[in-house]
Amino acid sequence: MNQDFQEKAINTIRFLSADGVQTANSGHPGLPMGTAAIAYTLFTRHLKHNPTNPKWADRDRFVLSGGHGSMLLYSMLHLTGYDLPLEQLKQFRQWGSLTPGHPEVGLTPGVETTTGPLGQGFATGVGMAIAEAHLAAIFNKDGHPVVDHYTYGIVTDGDLMEGVASEAASLAGHLKLGKLIYFYDDNHISIDGETELAFTEDRGARFEAYGWQVIRIADGNDVEAIDAAIKAAKTDPRPSLIICPTIIGYGLPNLAGSEKAHGAPPGNAELDAAKELVGWPVQPRFFIPEDVLAFYRKALETGAAAQAKWEQEMAAYAAQYPELAAEFKRRMAGEFPQGWDVDLVDFPTDMKKGVATRNASGKVINALAPRIPELIGGSADLAPSTKTWINGSPAFQHESPEGRNFHFGVREFAMGAAVNGITLHGGCIAYGASFMVFTDYCRSAMRTAALSHIPSIWVFTHDSIGLGEDGPTHQPIEHLASLRAMPNLYVIRPADANETAEAWKFALRNRSKPTFFALSRQDLPVYDRTENACACNLARGAYVLKDFGEGTPEVILIGTGSELSIAYQAAEKLAAEGTRVRVVSFPCWELFEEQDQDYKDSVLPPSIAKRVVIEAGVAMGWERYATNKGRIIAMGSFGASAPYEILYEKFGFTVENVLAQAKDLLAH
Amino acid sequence: MNQDFQEKAINTIRFLSADGVQTANSGHPGLPMGTAAIAYTLFTRHLKHNPTNPKWADRDRFVLSGGHGSMLLYSMLHLTGYDLPLEQLKQFRQWGSLTPGHPEVGLTPGVETTTGPLGQGFATGVGMAIAEAHLAAIFNKDGHPVVDHYTYGIVTDGDLMEGVASEAASLAGHLKLGKLIYFYDDNHISIDGETELAFTEDRGARFEAYGWQVIRIADGNDVEAIDAAIKAAKTDPRPSLIICPTIIGYGLPNLAGSEKAHGAPPGNAELDAAKELVGWPVQPRFFIPEDVLAFYRKALETGAAAQAKWEQEMAAYAAQYPELAAEFKRRMAGEFPQGWDVDLVDFPTDMKKGVATRNASGKVINALAPRIPELIGGSADLAPSTKTWINGSPAFQHESPEGRNFHFGVREFAMGAAVNGITLHGGCIAYGASFMVFTDYCRSAMRTAALSHIPSIWVFTHDSIGLGEDGPTHQPIEHLASLRAMPNLYVIRPADANETAEAWKFALRNRSKPTFFALSRQDLPVYDRTENACACNLARGAYVLKDFGEGTPEVILIGTGSELSIAYQAAEKLAAEGTRVRVVSFPCWELFEEQDQDYKDSVLPPSIAKRVVIEAGVAMGWERYATNKGRIIAMGSFGASAPYEILYEKFGFTVENVLAQAKDLLAH
Repeated sequence: MNQDFQEKAINTIRFLSADGVQTANSGHPGLPMGTAAIAYTLFTRHLKHNPTNPKWADRDRFVLSGGHGSMLLYSMLHLTGYDLPLEQLKQFRQWGSLTPGHPEVGLTPGVETTTGPLGQGFATGVGMAIAEAHLAAIFNKDGHPVVDHYTYGIVTDGDLMEGVASEAASLAGHLKLGKLIYFYDDNHISIDGETELAFTEDRGARFEAYGWQVIRIADGNDVEAIDAAIKAAKTDPRPSLIICPTIIGYGLPNLAGSEKAHGAPPGNAELDAAKELVGWPVQPRFFIPEDVLAFYRKALETGAAAQAKWEQEMAAYAAQYPELAAEFKRRMAGEFPQGWDVDLVDFPTDMKKGVATRNASGKVINALAPRIPELIGGSADLAPSTKTWINGSPAFQHESPEGRNFHFGVREFAMGAAVNGITLHGGCIAYGASFMVFTDYCRSAMRTAALSHIPSIWVFTHDSIGLGEDGPTHQPIEHLASLRAMPNLYVIRPADANETAEAWKFALRNRSKPTFFALSRQDLPVYDRTENACACNLARGAYVLKDFGEGTPEVILIGTGSELSIAYQAAEKLAAEGTRVRVVSFPCWELFEEQDQDYKDSVLPPSIAKRVVIEAGVAMGWERYATNKGRIIAMGSFGASAPYEILYEKFGFTVENVLAQAKDLLAH
Repeated sequence: MNQDFQEKAINTIRFLSADGVQTANSGHPGLPMGTAAIAYTLFTRHLKHNPTNPKWADRDRFVLSGGHGSMLLYSMLHLTGYDLPLEQLKQFRQWGSLTPGHPEVGLTPGVETTTGPLGQGFATGVGMAIAEAHLAAIFNKDGHPVVDHYTYGIVTDGDLMEGVASEAASLAGHLKLGKLIYFYDDNHISIDGETELAFTEDRGARFEAYGWQVIRIADGNDVEAIDAAIKAAKTDPRPSLIICPTIIGYGLPNLAGSEKAHGAPPGNAELDAAKELVGWPVQPRFFIPEDVLAFYRKALETGAAAQAKWEQEMAAYAAQYPELAAEFKRRMAGEFPQGWDVDLVDFPTDMKKGVATRNASGKVINALAPRIPELIGGSADLAPSTKTWINGSPAFQHESPEGRNFHFGVREFAMGAAVNGITLHGGCIAYGASFMVFTDYCRSAMRTAALSHIPSIWVFTHDSIGLGEDGPTHQPIEHLASLRAMPNLYVIRPADANETAEAWKFALRNRSKPTFFALSRQDLPVYDRTENACACNLARGAYVLKDFGEGTPEVILIGTGSELSIAYQAAEKLAAEGTRVRVVSFPCWELFEEQDQDYKDSVLPPSIAKRVVIEAGVAMGWERYATNKGRIIAMGSFGASAPYEILYEKFGFTVENVLAQAKDLLAH
């Protein structure tokens, strides 16, 4: 490799990226210009990928955790031949383009995950490496490494400062994810100025403490040093952090090395001067020397060859292990085994003791587990409480990567991002679990899933004041509302064990968006479905559980989760007094909103404005279904520490209160 | 000290705590029994506190970060003579008691902060240490160390796994908070089992990498070793982590050292056996040997003496520095200087270019800064964007602890908890700032503030798709709704610069709850307040900005923040066409809900059901104010990456759309 040509190829990345930012008059030139040599080295010497098939199962994954440097990624994808025309780079940050301000998976070919919220890319990559290790353990056979790829990432100061990256790094070190290789863009600059202002810890020593291999190179522009570091990283059994001293905005004559190069266009004069400095044509913008393009586009050939070689290996593997090969293909295609949902689990009627929906969920998981071997997951150190353990499978550990159960540790946010990463990798359907109040710790990962159509499954228990004595720090009050406010997220609060089974079936069928379960700690009655509507109606979001009395109901009682039974008991009493009353189970707003108006009106007829909603969360949003004339029995404050039966009484979640509200409505 | 007596005193803590848990039949015996010797050593040999005055300004702060071990804290508070009678310990986790499942500041005398959500106590303590260092820098004079106390904490495996603690530890190390001393309850047990399952990093090395002094003792039951470690910690200029190997549930014959001792009552038999093993009377429960109680209660004497000594020092200080002493007293009492809000800042009418509310906020901060010297704060590495820098004051650093500006680093969650800690310390009014979408990173700290009535101030900017090109990862959509769902939090979205000034005034007056500002990135018109209602009406949550036309309005247009001007322009057009139209500015739901019904009805008369709400967030909850017949122009999806003017058009936030909706309503 001619040194000048190499420099030209690297400068192509720098100027493509800077031109994108300058043309958009918005964006971040600093990261792409500072890390261009890293991207060059990785993409031309190491990254196993096939630009014509960005979904090839055994490709290396590349995560740009500092998503603000998106032009770096778009430049690399365009240069190496992904279906991302130069025209798209010229449309950076414009309406309808494939090149949004921060990378979005699903939108742009070759983008492996959505990044921008710092630290999350780091943790999502850890999930990808987990999935690789798990699938390798299950499918690889001697001489047939059909699952064998690396997960690379570029991580920034901002990423390393975020707690989620700390959590994920500790987890990755614990799990000895040796095929995880991250480049640390150590540029000593953050938005406020020098990182010395707030970030003087010894990053290398910190990562060594996590159990990582830490490789320090002298210059982040030194291609041979980067190359050698990657080679060293590959041979080490630990995850690797390659610390690359870089210069933010490298090449900008006045701004390089300053926070001013981070997040604003350099300006025409500065950009022109940068180009002149290295003999680059000032115009046209988005200039790519032909020989450079040809050089990068070799990725099409090497990528196709790499995939062809893998297909050959797969064929040999299939010849020897036909069932495993078929299974691998099935899992990577996201297809379920036939009949997976037939006679899954049926909970017998039990109106006395009942079953906590967290326990029901545990049974469903274990009914699903043998049928859907790709179902894996775990909790943030709450397996016994969230009932998420798959029996008969070990924990996923370095010594047992075939394990389907995850000890994520008390690290909710890293868990959330890792579950997204596992899901994005393909071949696995992943869930994460904790107490519902701790959605506050991992909410951004849930949002990334929602935004990016990642079908992660969130199993959150202890869903109200019904958890009792742990008190208000642990009682979700506003969480149902705040999660329902999030676009693209199905929030399901099943009212009994059979609704819980239906919720799981929905979540597994719903492969384009995340699903959230709010499950009870306390036991809930299991309804007799011969006398009440089928739990399968959960898929419609809300349904008439039972009409008490003949003819048009006079009042509708609406409940979700643990409060449905309070509404139900109140209805029984009203019916005994001769009132025609309807009970609606309303486990999922989003599903109900997807129904046609006829169905919606059949459940909640506009003519019946006398409605009582009962839910042990804040009222917010229920106005939509209660109507202005209805009543909402809800939490108006934080909870309290006491046995839950007392809390229900004190906060008004009683049959008596529902009766009082309903009778008051009926009297007017 | 007689060794047997000492052991008896420590066992008193263990059994008081275990009796509390067993009596409640709920709770966590493991931590109190395992760390009793640490608490004993700290409380009897080091902690400077005065149980009869839990608010003494110069007391040491003690944070039980593992809040699930609350019985340890309640035991220590009772034993050392706080106003927490034994009867309250017997009422552990019961309705109305002062001893909830997790400690709650404001409820129980001597509890310094609310803990339970792991990692947060750790980070809140960092805030307390910051406040101490800051006040010491401002008030201490040679020979007059009037601010001179330590912040202690007991932190657990769960705390150290949480990202927020990592963030806070890195920050504390950077800031060299030498008076921060944490005991790490290194018991090798988490809920899932051995910490080996998920947490094998070298914790000591990690903290050394952060710049902490790490002290390793051999036995967490060794009082002399703990004592020596505290002494060593006090003399070191770095924050200190004392790693104490402990045995969870120490003393329980069958459960000690197992995860079974963590979070469930030991059972009567096990608890009785534990008592018999050390010759403790099995009955009565909550037994406190008289000599032990007398020993612990010496804290009343030593505490009163310590405070008296400090008061003497203060008197001497006041004699020499009367103004400083008065100022210290004023700040610690939470009283503002007279006239602080008179003629604060008045933004001139500017309907053309206008002023972004983030810029207005920056001006208000700098108008307040000289008047309220206790106002301090900063951002998570976004000072230039959030406009939160106090001019003329340096950054708070080890070398400049008098600085009022904080570089929290890219650590939103630690920032949130630290702001709470600074506020709880007293003497400071603290704010934290970032982009609004990153409330998802620090939401739990905001919740802790809301739950605990901590008046932290949250200054969050870039409050909608109005931030433009950064795209959907950075555009808050559901955040207004999800924050409004949180009890006790005032969410204010000012519509112009003068509303922003009023919002700040409200936040400063509101010393019992947190306040959140949602501020625009983009410029917004500044209304002519001679033609429109006074911005001071912000304090009522919503108000009639202007009635166009005489007589009862035919339609009401409701807007918040950046969308108010769209409603306003639409109103001008409707008025020009002869329609009587009202424009309501609605910056804060919570304040509006606090108004009496007459006022509410005067702004939104029930007789006028034709209402159009416009807000660039999700519609959720606006049904309450729009009525069933109204229209809500809102976000139905995530945003997109493009210049904001285009986004506003594409997502329907236009004068034309408001007009269309209003006319459609008027036509029916």
